[in-house]
Amino acid sequence: MGSIAPPRKALTLDTINPHVKAAKYAVRGELAVRSEEYRAQLNKGEGKGLPFDSVISANIGNPQQLDQKPITFFRQVASLLENPLLLEQEQVLIDHLGYKSDVIERAKWLLHEVKSVGAYSASQGAPGIRESVAKFIERRDGYPASSKDIYLSNGASSGVNTLLHVICAKPETGILVPIPQYPLYTASLSLLNARCVPYYLEESHAWGTDHSAIQSSYDAAIKEGIDVKAIVIINPGNPTGATLSAQDIKSVLQFAAEKQLVVIADEVYQTNVFQGEFISFKRALRDLQKEHPGRYDDIELASLHSVSKGMIGECGHRGGYFELCGFDPQVAEQVYKFISIQLCPPVIGQCIVELMVNPPKEGEPSYELYKKEYDGIFSGLKERAMALYKAFKEMEGVECQEPAGSMYLFPTITLPQKAIEKAKEEGKQADEYYCFRMLDATGVCVVAGSGFGQKEGTLHFRTTFLAPGTDWTNRIVKFHQEFMEEFR
Amino acid sequence: MGSIAPPRKALTLDTINPHVKAAKYAVRGELAVRSEEYRAQLNKGEGKGLPFDSVISANIGNPQQLDQKPITFFRQVASLLENPLLLEQEQVLIDHLGYKSDVIERAKWLLHEVKSVGAYSASQGAPGIRESVAKFIERRDGYPASSKDIYLSNGASSGVNTLLHVICAKPETGILVPIPQYPLYTASLSLLNARCVPYYLEESHAWGTDHSAIQSSYDAAIKEGIDVKAIVIINPGNPTGATLSAQDIKSVLQFAAEKQLVVIADEVYQTNVFQGEFISFKRALRDLQKEHPGRYDDIELASLHSVSKGMIGECGHRGGYFELCGFDPQVAEQVYKFISIQLCPPVIGQCIVELMVNPPKEGEPSYELYKKEYDGIFSGLKERAMALYKAFKEMEGVECQEPAGSMYLFPTITLPQKAIEKAKEEGKQADEYYCFRMLDATGVCVVAGSGFGQKEGTLHFRTTFLAPGTDWTNRIVKFHQEFMEEFR
Repeated sequence: MGSIAPPRKALTLDTINPHVKAAKYAVRGELAVRSEEYRAQLNKGEGKGLPFDSVISANIGNPQQLDQKPITFFRQVASLLENPLLLEQEQVLIDHLGYKSDVIERAKWLLHEVKSVGAYSASQGAPGIRESVAKFIERRDGYPASSKDIYLSNGASSGVNTLLHVICAKPETGILVPIPQYPLYTASLSLLNARCVPYYLEESHAWGTDHSAIQSSYDAAIKEGIDVKAIVIINPGNPTGATLSAQDIKSVLQFAAEKQLVVIADEVYQTNVFQGEFISFKRALRDLQKEHPGRYDDIELASLHSVSKGMIGECGHRGGYFELCGFDPQVAEQVYKFISIQLCPPVIGQCIVELMVNPPKEGEPSYELYKKEYDGIFSGLKERAMALYKAFKEMEGVECQEPAGSMYLFPTITLPQKAIEKAKEEGKQADEYYCFRMLDATGVCVVAGSGFGQKEGTLHFRTTFLAPGTDWTNRIVKFHQEFMEEFR
Repeated sequence: MGSIAPPRKALTLDTINPHVKAAKYAVRGELAVRSEEYRAQLNKGEGKGLPFDSVISANIGNPQQLDQKPITFFRQVASLLENPLLLEQEQVLIDHLGYKSDVIERAKWLLHEVKSVGAYSASQGAPGIRESVAKFIERRDGYPASSKDIYLSNGASSGVNTLLHVICAKPETGILVPIPQYPLYTASLSLLNARCVPYYLEESHAWGTDHSAIQSSYDAAIKEGIDVKAIVIINPGNPTGATLSAQDIKSVLQFAAEKQLVVIADEVYQTNVFQGEFISFKRALRDLQKEHPGRYDDIELASLHSVSKGMIGECGHRGGYFELCGFDPQVAEQVYKFISIQLCPPVIGQCIVELMVNPPKEGEPSYELYKKEYDGIFSGLKERAMALYKAFKEMEGVECQEPAGSMYLFPTITLPQKAIEKAKEEGKQADEYYCFRMLDATGVCVVAGSGFGQKEGTLHFRTTFLAPGTDWTNRIVKFHQEFMEEFR
């Protein structure tokens, strides 16, 4: 009659950090894990029983995993940074390998700035690279920028992590977060045991911000005793695919000034704009300050950018930066200390940031190819966005905003009551159930709207439009038809 | 009669996260900042008034900043990963650029595993690379390892951050940390609002662990109501330069088993061993389990490694990994979720991890050069360690353990009473004051012992022995003599 002693573990689900346990991050959650299992089966030739022959990862903005080619100039420079001995063979590079003189010069300059991509840089990022970022911001906005306010980061995600760490002082600290949102925000707030104060975006107004929605979320939070300290805006929108108007941006800034909120502008999709114009929060802030001298001087703005998105798509390099405007210098010192604990962002990623903000210029040897590649990626993304949008428009019970920016569409789906009940039976949210069924039937992995937040009673999913070809769009259309039939 | 309105800022030193404010990280603190200012002055030709002509950054283990050459094989492979188009010109690579066939094959294999270094990988790291790590651990220890237990990380620092995040459940959670320690641990615990439970290493026994010191720190913590959950060991030691004996390691494991503590073994200096032998905690644990079947099965061990140290010195690439042994699978799932929020470690850094754990083997085309470079770096480090050690031995009031491992020496300094009083006048710790004076006089930047922790009443500093040449050692000797004269 043996009895098994219970394992004596220091760590169990009940004893670990409850805030880690509480955090949710659907972009890489159960659906994504199942899709990777399918992919592994197919790779091993064990996928015979599956009703599809490939997995399409439309759940995450990962362009190069979906066959987007890297920009040649960037990678040529990076190859020289990794192996500087190649610079001793310039003629071979030029005659046999197609490297242009500006590639070689840029690599030499970057090596001069960082010494070696294998050495730690300054924690805030290599000074020369921060100078380049500041110049880029000046050109983009028409207002001065200083390298001392630029912090290079490990993708934009680590920048968000840094900012929220510094801001979230206590459990009552609240951060206004758009709903739907990229779940990095809610997950980080869970980890920090701070409060997410959701404000709803207006689907009927192209997913714009709605002043009164922000105001009423804020008021409700204050009434609950929450100390609201910051507002997050994602522009262009993730998952919404929106591009905010000048008026929306101005209104957010005015609200932030009135309530003394830090503005966190997540602008990683700033070049993925298909409709309207990207206006940076920095520029809008400086415009506002010029219009009303003295009145908006105290606004604290942190704006983030990344090499992962745009036409660059260098996610794997984990490069990004944020700029602080109007922060108390003593607070900026604490930001520095916080990032110094993790030493520095990846140095080759920093160099990719430099290439992004300072690409070949007209007349330079690499310009023509760069421009061709860049424009080709842009128009490919736009075409695929429109094709997917058209397919969604023709699907029963599906409504979708016209693609305006970023890499995503976020259609509303209206599902038959029977499907909603079936989902409940299986212990899933209805849109989650739909997404699992889509994956199982088609190999296409998207993310359920519930992973980003949505208005009570509405259902959505987020898909990227990065995967090449139209076959996978057809798979979705066919699945949707069959799903609707099944539960009608 | 103008009066200036106080700035209305959301964030001030008084309103930000107090745990960020409380964190201390001396390795990149005020001394390091001043040394960078000196360096910038010298670079701009503005350093005429300074009593030195170069700054020596002996404050941080950053080999390639101090002219250590990267290993050719690693960087050749990395250059192909960055620019896979080069693989279309194999003959040029071989005939004109000195690339061997194994470089090309490895690059092809890694590209097959990650698809593109610009794509996000799985959050835990690319599966093929984790397989390589598991095989390396098997070869190193003579015991099985599984890729599912390997988590690639952004340097070892992010691994430590992950582990402490999961473990620290509440303000009463305590972690046993060696003193002196690498301040990543105390800084992370400050951020997490958890308790550092310091245990002193035995300077008189080559900075080994002392069972009774650990026991009494543990007992005192329990008495205070601290819930001690884990013990950190850094082996080889940072800042101590020690290599732990088999007996010390066994004793720590037995203590952890008895008290049900997670063991966090920071083994990033595992190849920097000049005296004795490196024994991994994993191997010691498996030995112990074999010796006493059933008795030590529940031990939870997390061991960390990195590409930043060793003979590799690829800090800037931010590559590392940790292995979990004996963790509850549900807890491991939470570790996965936590790291997935930051998406994935830099992919080129992951590839450098693969190259580190699977370098050219005897008989392969790149082996000879690899071996020559590796051994050259090792013996250079050893020589410099011994030279510095000898210099310290001859300095008045300085005592130093013989170099055994890692990249550091951590001498004790006995300063004249007058110097201690002068430091107090300037509002500094005595060893900090000494280090500032050393920097101002010589351009050599080291870190005061107080940045790592030390027994009450003792003073130390930590220096790397990475900088080439002996000039800087002489600068320290001369400064020390003058300093002692001044305060005698």
